[in-house]
Amino acid sequence: MEKAVRIAQLFQNEEAHKEKEVTIQGWVRTRRDSKAGISFIEVNDGSCLRNLQVIAERTDPELTRVVDRLATGCSVQVRGVVKPSPGKGQSIEVHAREIVLFGWADPAIYPLQKKRHSFEFLRTIAHLRPRTNTLGAVARLRNRLSFAVHQFFQKEGFVYVHTPIITSSDCEGAGEVFRVTTLDPANPPSPQGRDGNLYSLDFFEKPAFLTVSGQLQAEIYALALGKVYTFGPTFRAENSNTSRHLAEFWMIEPEMAFYDLQDNLELAQSFIKYVISAVLEDCAEDLQLFARFVEPTLMETLETLVRETFEVITYTEAVELLKKSGESFDYPVEWGSDLQSEHERYLTEKKFRKPVAIIHFPRAIKPFYMRVNEDEKTVAAMDVLVPRVGEIIGGSQREERLDVLLQQMELKGIPVEEYQWYVDLRRFGSAPHSGFGLGLERLVQFATGLGNIREVIPFPRTPGHAEF
Amino acid sequence: MEKAVRIAQLFQNEEAHKEKEVTIQGWVRTRRDSKAGISFIEVNDGSCLRNLQVIAERTDPELTRVVDRLATGCSVQVRGVVKPSPGKGQSIEVHAREIVLFGWADPAIYPLQKKRHSFEFLRTIAHLRPRTNTLGAVARLRNRLSFAVHQFFQKEGFVYVHTPIITSSDCEGAGEVFRVTTLDPANPPSPQGRDGNLYSLDFFEKPAFLTVSGQLQAEIYALALGKVYTFGPTFRAENSNTSRHLAEFWMIEPEMAFYDLQDNLELAQSFIKYVISAVLEDCAEDLQLFARFVEPTLMETLETLVRETFEVITYTEAVELLKKSGESFDYPVEWGSDLQSEHERYLTEKKFRKPVAIIHFPRAIKPFYMRVNEDEKTVAAMDVLVPRVGEIIGGSQREERLDVLLQQMELKGIPVEEYQWYVDLRRFGSAPHSGFGLGLERLVQFATGLGNIREVIPFPRTPGHAEF
Repeated sequence: MEKAVRIAQLFQNEEAHKEKEVTIQGWVRTRRDSKAGISFIEVNDGSCLRNLQVIAERTDPELTRVVDRLATGCSVQVRGVVKPSPGKGQSIEVHAREIVLFGWADPAIYPLQKKRHSFEFLRTIAHLRPRTNTLGAVARLRNRLSFAVHQFFQKEGFVYVHTPIITSSDCEGAGEVFRVTTLDPANPPSPQGRDGNLYSLDFFEKPAFLTVSGQLQAEIYALALGKVYTFGPTFRAENSNTSRHLAEFWMIEPEMAFYDLQDNLELAQSFIKYVISAVLEDCAEDLQLFARFVEPTLMETLETLVRETFEVITYTEAVELLKKSGESFDYPVEWGSDLQSEHERYLTEKKFRKPVAIIHFPRAIKPFYMRVNEDEKTVAAMDVLVPRVGEIIGGSQREERLDVLLQQMELKGIPVEEYQWYVDLRRFGSAPHSGFGLGLERLVQFATGLGNIREVIPFPRTPGHAEF
Repeated sequence: MEKAVRIAQLFQNEEAHKEKEVTIQGWVRTRRDSKAGISFIEVNDGSCLRNLQVIAERTDPELTRVVDRLATGCSVQVRGVVKPSPGKGQSIEVHAREIVLFGWADPAIYPLQKKRHSFEFLRTIAHLRPRTNTLGAVARLRNRLSFAVHQFFQKEGFVYVHTPIITSSDCEGAGEVFRVTTLDPANPPSPQGRDGNLYSLDFFEKPAFLTVSGQLQAEIYALALGKVYTFGPTFRAENSNTSRHLAEFWMIEPEMAFYDLQDNLELAQSFIKYVISAVLEDCAEDLQLFARFVEPTLMETLETLVRETFEVITYTEAVELLKKSGESFDYPVEWGSDLQSEHERYLTEKKFRKPVAIIHFPRAIKPFYMRVNEDEKTVAAMDVLVPRVGEIIGGSQREERLDVLLQQMELKGIPVEEYQWYVDLRRFGSAPHSGFGLGLERLVQFATGLGNIREVIPFPRTPGHAEF
């Protein structure tokens, strides 16, 4: 096809393009015909939030025949000359010489007419919603954050590892996992397999599930290559319909040999500062949309995160601070119980007004793989809290001592026989190591201010919803 | 923990480190004690293939006590001074001042002793195999290729999109998909749900599956943002135990509005040249390992791919070439039947000795979404073939005309009612568009020369296998 320039590039190099003929390809956002015989057509090609204004003189009958059909949503190719724009809100425009209409959109039935649509409505047309300003901006921000994740870890010498999606290991309890099977529960085969075990007939010859985390497998690679990270989908079959939960979401999980909790915390801090700096630098226009229409405090929270050193407190200190805060919480605060969202938000939004890392949580409320501290009551865990979102990072130093790990597994009821490979990592060349996890969607929520997690992933999966 | 320098960095900046004290952290590969009272310890930290030689003088009793325990697989921290090495095969070594042994590995039971292990054996210890030279090199190459994928598309202005993993759309036939469910086929609930429909009781309230491709959803984003790509896991429940098939593998799928087949082909070519150039530049040492021990023609194939322009022929021309090749193929070649691996390999390895793109395949053997050519017998498809691997890229221009698409769906028995969202893309602002898919594992096979796909993914999933 004809080589086109993308609109973002046009705006980035306005001077170089002035008085030059260019071709652009995109979709009509609006068309307005003036009485003076000029049509103003706003075209967007997805490369940036801003539309390019196309001017079509209605003296040309050929051009006018095409322009008259143009409606919101039509896809077009415009060839024309770049001119300084006298209009408000843009410095350049394109004076059309030829417009090709590729695909029409009937205004009588095209759902995305020029008006604000509710997020709820847009979710029902998830195949069209990326064509809106807000959801297009989400897609660009999510892209920039995702690439920044890779840039950060690559420059730090980490190896990107693809941990398995389908797994027969199931580290966080069978209640919340999805089963992966080639059997049909509506028509299970009979007789029921070898020794009456139906799953001997299944694809993997035993029960298999969708992963809830790549951490344990990432530890395998950390103890071979030193520093690794995963970035892939994870799943939770939690039957909760909230604005904070998805059944399918993307996780980033670095895992580092020879890192203790302090090193882990420093990495987490420089990591999150790096990715937020990337959007502040490269997505200014999209961020402004969110600051204006979604969350007025957005820029301040992002800039604070980049500027300030995280506050680090122990869980025990956090409990004390919450107790004497004078706030009335829905959930009581007691040493030994998990912090609730309201507690996290008090600490990061009111008490410290910046990111807060809480370390050394009670052993009883944390998973078996976290390293037991000398007090034997706490583990070397860390949670990083940010305003609005609450917990954005959870991690720990891992238990590298074979005897303590086995003790922990027994205590927590983890079947050692199913995790021999994990135990082996402590049997052969064990080393102090640490890691953390960050949910990409939480990060995108933090960077956009969007309150509902269903807006920050292209096709949200929730109870009853797997459309598109 | 103590700040360590990674061995790859030490080798990259040998001069800057000479006579300086450094700390390194890694795993012992071998230890040898000389009669002259010196121990030679080879340490690897996963940052590169090469080991660092550590010299420990046995005059120091403290040091000797630790060194005497060191065996293959032990994890250590070494503090010492970088010196020019008189030995063969390395230019620097570290003279140890202090060695800390973090984790021992009992030589009587540690499976990875210094000898060559078969790939079959290593697969049974997939939690330890990244500690070997070959599998470590695979991990680094896979990492470099994966990052190069992102670098390429980001510099070209593509948006990375996360298409859904769980989907109720199932575009390539129900026979080969995995079901995702919270129901237990061994104990299906009874009574069987609303109106006797068991799946009304399932998590998504209808049958749901693991994706076989993100293409159709990527088209949604291409027709909003212009140029997008996916990079994520895809699944095939094919019950075939071959060296070419996995049940879980990673796919890269770019999708571009305003691209025709020619544009698509040019993108595919510059994409694959870019990622292979990246490993040629940055992974020379690892590539040499594969060229030496796995595939002698490796470097030549990679360099040819980067240097040569792909041969482009139509399917019809390919069939003619194969017919008059004089080769005796297992499968006969007839216009209208799909090309087999042996045919592909003849074309790319014998006939042209470089990458070959075949375009315009018979309509009957290709999926419904490919654009029908003017002859109405062929579609605007393309397959890119490379030596050893055969087909590495498959793509097409997509059918953007509403009427032709509907015709194709009827012809191929695709239920239109389930794909209204896909049809809508042709109803509202349709545009010529194209895309392709590339399996990451095939790419890693191509770049390493490894013949069995189970070696190029950390934890291969195949019939009967979902361990770790």
